[in-house]
Amino acid sequence: MEQLECYDCGETYAFGDAARCRCGEPLWFETDTAGFDWPDASGTTGSGVSLGRDTLWRYESVLPAATPTGLAAAAGGTPLFRAPSIEPADGPRIHLKIEGVNPTGSFKDRGTAVGICRVDGPVGTVSHGNMALSVAAHAAAADREAIILVAEDTPDSRLAMIAQHDPHLFRVRGDYGRLYDDTLDGDLGVAFLNSDTPLRVAGQKTVAYEICEAFAPNAPDAIVLPVSSGGQASGVWKALRELNAAGLLSAMPRIYLAQAARCDPIAQAYRRGASRVESIEGEPTAAVSINNADPPSGNRALAAVAATDGGVVSVAEEAMLDETERLAADAGVSVEPSCAVATAAVRELAASGEFGSDDDVAVILTGSGYKYGGAAVDAASVREVDRADVPDAVRDAVP
Amino acid sequence: MEQLECYDCGETYAFGDAARCRCGEPLWFETDTAGFDWPDASGTTGSGVSLGRDTLWRYESVLPAATPTGLAAAAGGTPLFRAPSIEPADGPRIHLKIEGVNPTGSFKDRGTAVGICRVDGPVGTVSHGNMALSVAAHAAAADREAIILVAEDTPDSRLAMIAQHDPHLFRVRGDYGRLYDDTLDGDLGVAFLNSDTPLRVAGQKTVAYEICEAFAPNAPDAIVLPVSSGGQASGVWKALRELNAAGLLSAMPRIYLAQAARCDPIAQAYRRGASRVESIEGEPTAAVSINNADPPSGNRALAAVAATDGGVVSVAEEAMLDETERLAADAGVSVEPSCAVATAAVRELAASGEFGSDDDVAVILTGSGYKYGGAAVDAASVREVDRADVPDAVRDAVP
Ligand SMILES: [Zn+2]
Ligand SMILES: [Zn+2]
Repeated sequence: MEQLECYDCGETYAFGDAARCRCGEPLWFETDTAGFDWPDASGTTGSGVSLGRDTLWRYESVLPAATPTGLAAAAGGTPLFRAPSIEPADGPRIHLKIEGVNPTGSFKDRGTAVGICRVDGPVGTVSHGNMALSVAAHAAAADREAIILVAEDTPDSRLAMIAQHDPHLFRVRGDYGRLYDDTLDGDLGVAFLNSDTPLRVAGQKTVAYEICEAFAPNAPDAIVLPVSSGGQASGVWKALRELNAAGLLSAMPRIYLAQAARCDPIAQAYRRGASRVESIEGEPTAAVSINNADPPSGNRALAAVAATDGGVVSVAEEAMLDETERLAADAGVSVEPSCAVATAAVRELAASGEFGSDDDVAVILTGSGYKYGGAAVDAASVREVDRADVPDAVRDAVP
Repeated sequence: MEQLECYDCGETYAFGDAARCRCGEPLWFETDTAGFDWPDASGTTGSGVSLGRDTLWRYESVLPAATPTGLAAAAGGTPLFRAPSIEPADGPRIHLKIEGVNPTGSFKDRGTAVGICRVDGPVGTVSHGNMALSVAAHAAAADREAIILVAEDTPDSRLAMIAQHDPHLFRVRGDYGRLYDDTLDGDLGVAFLNSDTPLRVAGQKTVAYEICEAFAPNAPDAIVLPVSSGGQASGVWKALRELNAAGLLSAMPRIYLAQAARCDPIAQAYRRGASRVESIEGEPTAAVSINNADPPSGNRALAAVAATDGGVVSVAEEAMLDETERLAADAGVSVEPSCAVATAAVRELAASGEFGSDDDVAVILTGSGYKYGGAAVDAASVREVDRADVPDAVRDAVP
């Protein structure tokens, strides 16, 4: 797996020779999955100790890196469970893939783990959210220098969380959006594991391997996920292509992507029937982790949707916030609004008849909401009571 | 598995007939593991979809509840990996069991999941920390009323995190410590899943099943964990007894317990050579989650140590805080100080010669530090830079 290829024009490059295709589109690793089958056993750590659960290294044979020792060994292998309590009436069966239980609380650990095991020397990323935390933590574990470039207005509470892993942390003044390109070429002697780099996409694809293996020998009817840069969507599509080539899919799952309506360039292109995403002027949204007005793998995300007969859904701010509350109060899962767009999209697709009660839909909940704390506590949700009065208070609450 | 027994006097009771033994000691489920062997395959969810990883339900045959649908299906199955970067020179191999990747970020999900699947109707707990969050989330997912009794001085940020799962949340004025006993008898019509109840111990034991299975057909030399009420220590001991009865341990791992020196009643009893723990007047410590001056299963925890030839270690406040930083900066794992006591204890046991370089030590890191955020960010750890100056700044940082 030393070769990169362009999904669009088919051009190939040796790994390390190009950051993106000459045609402008992003690259990913060429992976031959002819003969691949679901593995029998889980991996082992360096000392011969079997991992406590199956992690993404279960799929080592289709990854561009070898199973490591340390934190990176723990990425992936997240639970998938059916959540009847949030299924809409006459809607599909909803299966939640809770990526928030990765080591640093988000799906980003998959790409970081694979990436850091493949490159030498310092690593970096342009992020002030989940990816920054993930790269900082994995660099710490692997004894690598880490360069984390955050936006100027990143809140101190986030910085403190990242800083505990002791990276080189830079608050960058100026056009933060341009940093993605600035850091692509590797001239700085730092391997930037940005959101849609080939190594990251290779790691991110494992979430779809896990989902499909859980349904094997069947397949889910659809996979629904939030989209920002398009890197995770690319990974899901790549996994489906690879598994299809291996003959392991009974049918091709449709890929549906969800965006916040206030910043939805990919959804806008989808509604136009375009194959190219245009950058937009987004509005501020609570979905901060997917607030990307100029997604570098937007075209590839659109191609994933087109190739699998899926769709892209814009979710109104209010519906997204309601869904965030619903996931916590009815499914017991705390997520960011940036995740809740995905189940909100399922709700809309069920209402429009796109999903029916015969459908199995897997939803990727990309990150944990606990990291970002509860904001203020609603006074109405807490009652004060003397110890002696607890029995009466309890009987009043649950008569 | 309908029978409870006392580890100490051997008395048995039908489940539901007694909260504690007549002799005063806590009870646990009698479990016959003759003929038990490591299972071959992972469980399946209600819809026939295989779980994405092995969870604690892998051990359903030795649990007092059946595999559920929903969030409870996702508890356990946490990664175990070797962390050479924090191993002391000439010390043991350290294997980290990161319980912070459970659905609500702590080991408590194991006991909550098993408990809530075994009882009907409302559930409750006396906790303002990890256990409160866990019970609130699992109750939400199972569509149960939840009664959460928190201490009067619980910070709003914690309440907000718990409140998102929509429980009945009571701030209790008065002697919070007595609430444990107040809620034991079940008279309130609420099943209180407190820290060392038989159902919770049954769930908590699965962490040691997972650790031992990872080492099978060998066994780790020792299992090290923080101790508070003694419920988790009881679970680990119970697992080892059961696995030993099943003939699945090549040798009995030693159980070592770690406490913060500022509140260490179990360590004090251990140093006295006593078999009974006496309640103490603890001092405030950063190890808030294990700050228990009168542990209800303290005697059982001592018995676990004695039976396995282990020990109890008091960790100085400073060493504990240093270890918290070390885990984040060198192993990439964010934990509460209440967890870091465990690896700090390994360090002390290595220094005193109790662990050598031939030993495999499994350490249970009970919860994630991300939930509690980074406090303040150290100004020295963040640099401000203009976008144009990023290349120079990066080259300065990683020459
Ligand atoms: Zn191309
Ligand atoms: Zn007894």
